[in-house]
Amino acid sequence: EPVEPPVATPKIQKPYVLIGAGTASFAAAQAIKEKQPDANVIIIGNEEYAPYMRPPLSKELWFSEDPEVAKTLVFKDWQGTERNTIYQDVSHYEVIEDASGSDLQTDKIKLLLNKQVAKLNVEDHTITLADGSKIYYNKVLLATGGAPKSLPGQDGKSDKVTTFRTVNDFKKLDQIAKDGAHIAVVGGGFLGSELAVALAKRGEKEKLTVTQVFPEEGNMANVFPSYLTKWTTTRVRKLGVDVQTDSAIKDIKTDENNKVVLDLGNDKQVVADHVVVAVGIEPRVDLARDAGLEIDEKRAGVVVNAELEARTDVFAAGDMVSFHDVQLGRRRIEHHDHAVLSGRHAGENMVGGAKPYKHQSMFWSDLGPEIGYEAVGLVDAQLSTVSVWAKATAKDTPAAAAGTEAESPRSAPNAGPAGETTKAVASTNPFKDEKFGKGLVFYVREKQIVGLLLFNVFGKVQEARDIIDAGYTTEQIDGLLKKFNLHEDSH
Amino acid sequence: EPVEPPVATPKIQKPYVLIGAGTASFAAAQAIKEKQPDANVIIIGNEEYAPYMRPPLSKELWFSEDPEVAKTLVFKDWQGTERNTIYQDVSHYEVIEDASGSDLQTDKIKLLLNKQVAKLNVEDHTITLADGSKIYYNKVLLATGGAPKSLPGQDGKSDKVTTFRTVNDFKKLDQIAKDGAHIAVVGGGFLGSELAVALAKRGEKEKLTVTQVFPEEGNMANVFPSYLTKWTTTRVRKLGVDVQTDSAIKDIKTDENNKVVLDLGNDKQVVADHVVVAVGIEPRVDLARDAGLEIDEKRAGVVVNAELEARTDVFAAGDMVSFHDVQLGRRRIEHHDHAVLSGRHAGENMVGGAKPYKHQSMFWSDLGPEIGYEAVGLVDAQLSTVSVWAKATAKDTPAAAAGTEAESPRSAPNAGPAGETTKAVASTNPFKDEKFGKGLVFYVREKQIVGLLLFNVFGKVQEARDIIDAGYTTEQIDGLLKKFNLHEDSH
Ligand SMILES: Cc1cc2nc3c(=O)[nH]c(=O)nc-3n(C[C@H](O)[C@H](O)[C@H](O)COP(=O)(O)OP(=O)(O)OC[C@H]3O[C@@H](n4cnc5c(N)ncnc54)[C@H](O)[C@@H]3O)c2cc1C
Ligand SMILES: Cc1cc2nc3c(=O)[nH]c(=O)nc-3n(C[C@H](O)[C@H](O)[C@H](O)COP(=O)(O)OP(=O)(O)OC[C@H]3O[C@@H](n4cnc5c(N)ncnc54)[C@H](O)[C@@H]3O)c2cc1C
Ligand SMILES: NC(=O)c1ccc[n+]([C@@H]2O[C@H](COP(=O)([O-])OP(=O)(O)OC[C@H]3O[C@@H](n4cnc5c(N)ncnc54)[C@H](O)[C@@H]3O)[C@@H](O)[C@H]2O)c1
Ligand SMILES: NC(=O)c1ccc[n+]([C@@H]2O[C@H](COP(=O)([O-])OP(=O)(O)OC[C@H]3O[C@@H](n4cnc5c(N)ncnc54)[C@H](O)[C@@H]3O)[C@@H](O)[C@H]2O)c1
Repeated sequence: EPVEPPVATPKIQKPYVLIGAGTASFAAAQAIKEKQPDANVIIIGNEEYAPYMRPPLSKELWFSEDPEVAKTLVFKDWQGTERNTIYQDVSHYEVIEDASGSDLQTDKIKLLLNKQVAKLNVEDHTITLADGSKIYYNKVLLATGGAPKSLPGQDGKSDKVTTFRTVNDFKKLDQIAKDGAHIAVVGGGFLGSELAVALAKRGEKEKLTVTQVFPEEGNMANVFPSYLTKWTTTRVRKLGVDVQTDSAIKDIKTDENNKVVLDLGNDKQVVADHVVVAVGIEPRVDLARDAGLEIDEKRAGVVVNAELEARTDVFAAGDMVSFHDVQLGRRRIEHHDHAVLSGRHAGENMVGGAKPYKHQSMFWSDLGPEIGYEAVGLVDAQLSTVSVWAKATAKDTPAAAAGTEAESPRSAPNAGPAGETTKAVASTNPFKDEKFGKGLVFYVREKQIVGLLLFNVFGKVQEARDIIDAGYTTEQIDGLLKKFNLHEDSH
Repeated sequence: EPVEPPVATPKIQKPYVLIGAGTASFAAAQAIKEKQPDANVIIIGNEEYAPYMRPPLSKELWFSEDPEVAKTLVFKDWQGTERNTIYQDVSHYEVIEDASGSDLQTDKIKLLLNKQVAKLNVEDHTITLADGSKIYYNKVLLATGGAPKSLPGQDGKSDKVTTFRTVNDFKKLDQIAKDGAHIAVVGGGFLGSELAVALAKRGEKEKLTVTQVFPEEGNMANVFPSYLTKWTTTRVRKLGVDVQTDSAIKDIKTDENNKVVLDLGNDKQVVADHVVVAVGIEPRVDLARDAGLEIDEKRAGVVVNAELEARTDVFAAGDMVSFHDVQLGRRRIEHHDHAVLSGRHAGENMVGGAKPYKHQSMFWSDLGPEIGYEAVGLVDAQLSTVSVWAKATAKDTPAAAAGTEAESPRSAPNAGPAGETTKAVASTNPFKDEKFGKGLVFYVREKQIVGLLLFNVFGKVQEARDIIDAGYTTEQIDGLLKKFNLHEDSH
């Protein structure tokens, strides 16, 4: 009788392990699956949600009319398209419960939530979960993002002084911002400024009082040139925020009425029901450091090369990575689009790409529906700048411009399927007679244009990117302006 | 008639291209061939010699009795073993004449001399020679070493003001140092101090006058603690060198007698027949920079990770590499043993090792036959130090100790076959009554021992290495001393 050859049970390959269930890991997982559909991919995250985008948490979600928004997490982007903050429902993933799931045969991306990765061993090719179980990896991506910094003296003080980064942070603040309270926001950067404006907007209905406190001379002072910072601060005030500039927090106390008292020195105080601390992030590099990977002393991220590779089979992406930008030099970037692009790129290189990460990411911010800016490259108030301004028209607001920006992550931060697009919000011209209604700021290092801020100028990110990639010098700015139609007539 | 299947002509694999025919490339080539004997390995160098070691050029070759030493390049190491400065005669290599040789089938390591690599293209996997021809590589090693720095105002001044790095530089200086001339050495570091002492030694026969000029307070001031610098300077003076400390060169001129005049300011001058400039090196990173690789702004080398990899298939080793030392942090090292070890390590990783470079290299220097030191780790006068001294005996000189140091690169800088060992030079005790005859200097950063200098203490490099690897703190020094038998009786 002929002996049947035993059916070879295909041994499942060791997984691509993506640490951190944020934007960078999500983008990496998609890229790996596109290039290698049968890849065993596991995303491990310590939050309770499937990967989601953070930008709406300080913007669109606050403008929602839906009282259930904190449950649905659905928002309308500026184009009116409904989107969910969570990229994909968990049903799209193979949700696994523990390390043993790494052997499971499935075509889906695996998702292991509520788990802390406690250790990385790059020599053994293993990660260890907080419960002690191990997963052997094929390649690993570090995408652990950043942890919000606290104010000195904040820790354990009170549940009334909180940081803001996650969906759960949004849910909590959404509750607090419903009862006519006084909310103080500490920090004048991206998050502090966006949140202060968003809370003020909600305050129109809920009778919130919103104070913003920070040590700089105005909003976004670390990014904008001084005059633009000052102008922007006047706009933020007009939107209803009590902006306290030049104010460092000397002390934080709670008083007898259970209010939080921020002592600003010189007898100045802010007494609030709740304080949101938005004073920057610290990249989460403990795992990497303990694994013996290099930490960039200057920029605080884990060091990788231009291919986003730290060591053989070890990659990193997103907020926590210090990478070599072939065009602009070593950088770390804390923005959504970079998390998407570097995540994708790392994913591609994990399946053999071996390419440098050269695509210049962009970022954007909106301070309410009437001021928006986008930027590419090094945009830092420490650099010298050359700027060009024009009269803004009714078209020159993020709300009005949205329909024209099909390829901007601003209008579609999600890599998912595009939804229906309704017409843009109709708007009047809020900038008549304003000095800085609309303009370009070129950031310059050793005569070379290294960054470009598009202030209420929309749909021009690719042009900006081309300028950075080409390495133009300041002498060439004049000739470059025509790409931007700054002085186009308003209609 | 049956048709013979065509004999498959085996297509030769794309080569491992090692740029720079120095120590690092030589070591890498050996390692690659050990791991993969049929590998196609090409060393390309712009000098006319097969790979050679530089240490004897400022030491042993000057002590040779052979008038033909500049032709033979043969020297006796401290053990009396005859060695050649050139690691292996060219006959051991397959010498190729141009880029087309990269396709040649041979088991030997290929050697392409007198050729400048003009371009590296890491995306195409090619290098281009100065003659325009290209070689496609499989993997590439950058091992271009460093170029000696010049003094401001030196360039084109005179063939009487020269730098010193190559065999040809040795041959030239050997000629010049034969006619009773006055030679000034500028620089108080490794090369300047060794050469000054070597020239003074030759001066005993050839009636040379030797002056050494540098801005620091003594010899090796950037490495030694201040008191040891001062003490060493007195020893260098005793060996016949006129050491001019605290002297910066204000100007270089040639006078009517065709002498070189070094103006030291304050009416101080040194008038010499020849000036050797030894003011440090600049790592040769142009190829790397033009290829878009990252250059370490602080340490000036090409940036690689702990595996000595800059990008996929691109490695670097030796003087020109800024690497991540997992134990001590990012470093660049300009010493022979590091060139050997990092070259070997890069070679192993080029054939798939993927291991971090963790072996702590050592370095050594001798100031004549009676003072020698060896060191491991970060040895920098900027660090704080803890040192322990003991009375030296006649055994405690590099000459006397040589026989005990079988595994030290000092006694066998060559990875080649070991020669005959004759008995050590007999010596009397030159250190009676000396304060710093023999001792250990621990270099400390944030309480951790990060470097260890063994001053006239020999055969203890492995002990030093273990201490650095273990990350001991200053509190533990007491317990560590017993490893070194510092106070052993003299016989
Ligand atoms: C409120 C808010 C609004 C923003 N708006 C914008 C915007 O408008 N435009 C813009 O460009 N950028 C914006 N950003 C920045 C942007 O969201 C970040 O740059 C981006 O989220 C970075 O993605 P990431 O994947 O690197 O990290 P993250 O999104 O932080 O994801 C990392 C994840 O890893 C988890 N994790 C960390 N360590 C471990 C571990 N050991 N084990 C398991 N899981 C771990 C973390 O909990 C987290 O869930 C905003 C940020 C915030 C907070
Ligand atoms: C005189 C002297 C004495 C020394 N003594 C000691 C000692 O006692 N102990 C110690 O530890 N260290 C010593 N050193 C230092 C030690 O020699 C160096 O650290 C070591 O040589 C570095 O090796 P490398 O292979 O990195 O570079 P190198 O030895 O400099 O080799 C690099 C080679 O690449 C060639 N090259 C560069 N660019 C190109 C190109 N584009 N195309 C083709 N070829 C190129 C260069 O010409 C050179 O031949 C000494 C150095 C000198 C100069
Ligand atoms: N549109 C966007 O791109 C966007 C929007 C929101 C958040 N984010 C990201 O989220 C993260 C958090 O944002 P962020 O605004 O906290 O960081 P940030 O780095 O943008 O701003 C930090 C701010 O903290 C303030 N600050 C620092 N130390 C302080 C102190 N001791 N007391 C008071 N104020 C102090 C300063 O005002 C400074 O502007 C960042 O990575 C940011 O890039 C980005
Ligand atoms: N035993 C060894 O390890 C050894 C021996 C010889 C050479 N080398 C290596 O060879 C290379 C060259 O040696 P080196 O001694 O030139 O370099 P070095 O870095 O050891 O010393 C540089 C010296 O240059 C001097 N200097 C700097 N700028 C000056 C100026 N403007 N005017 C006058 N003096 C100035 C200073 O005295 C300084 O000590 C180095 O990489 C060195 O490590 C090593």
